[in-house]
Amino acid sequence: MTTKKWAFENFQEGMTLDLGEKHVTAEEIIEFASEFDAQPMHLDEQAGKASILGGLAASGWHSCAMLMRLMCDAFLLDSTSQGAPGIDYVRWMRPVLAGDTLRGTMTVLATRLSNSRPDLGFVTVRHDLTNQNGDVVMQCKHTGMFLKREAAA
Amino acid sequence: MTTKKWAFENFQEGMTLDLGEKHVTAEEIIEFASEFDAQPMHLDEQAGKASILGGLAASGWHSCAMLMRLMCDAFLLDSTSQGAPGIDYVRWMRPVLAGDTLRGTMTVLATRLSNSRPDLGFVTVRHDLTNQNGDVVMQCKHTGMFLKREAAA
Repeated sequence: MTTKKWAFENFQEGMTLDLGEKHVTAEEIIEFASEFDAQPMHLDEQAGKASILGGLAASGWHSCAMLMRLMCDAFLLDSTSQGAPGIDYVRWMRPVLAGDTLRGTMTVLATRLSNSRPDLGFVTVRHDLTNQNGDVVMQCKHTGMFLKREAAA
Repeated sequence: MTTKKWAFENFQEGMTLDLGEKHVTAEEIIEFASEFDAQPMHLDEQAGKASILGGLAASGWHSCAMLMRLMCDAFLLDSTSQGAPGIDYVRWMRPVLAGDTLRGTMTVLATRLSNSRPDLGFVTVRHDLTNQNGDVVMQCKHTGMFLKREAAA
């Protein structure tokens, strides 16, 4: 029996969870892009302004990574998570620009017990990242695996 | 008329492109995880061995970011890319462990011209990341937007 806050039983279809906020700086955008996605609109303000993104904009993968950090801090590190086999989709709907403040919201779409492992369940969620103007900038959907409370250490 | 190597016309259904190799170090795994995905199996060798991943393992989002870097170096930074609206799916099929050497391969699944913008086309691709044992560790599919050669600066 785990003392962790979040086990499979704590997720219920229809519930939403506030994942908190992340302020995005130009320095972070440039640092991530320099290592992983060195396209000009992710490295330089003028190049960003000249692009369809309209300013120095985070790599889409950087937005995914920032969402992951919000998930970790909001619940995942205090959970019985056993990881996820993948991502159903990611939608980059609007640019994430230097100076933006993002808020994550998780919505539980479905839960089900594993057929093959009685100690494990699947939790399907959609994440929304919203900026300070209330615009949704990114959505993604995935299914995570969580141990049942009685099965977790 | 651009002098870039890769414009919309250069992508053809069925073609494959070698994206090159990336050696994955423990230090890189821990650095990425510390910032974005601080789950124990991404931070500590012993915790990784105790998990279903079997060793110090890269965050799935780190694998995505490493794939993006391979794409950039192989063709994207010398292309007419206009970005991508999202990802159709990501499948994390096997752990990416410290010491692995990953190879990326891109397969073009479909190409089509935009209905609304005659200067632009869509290229749908699947990426495979394979480790040094020949095992596919990750797949993802997405559609990128590329300017036609004559339309690009």
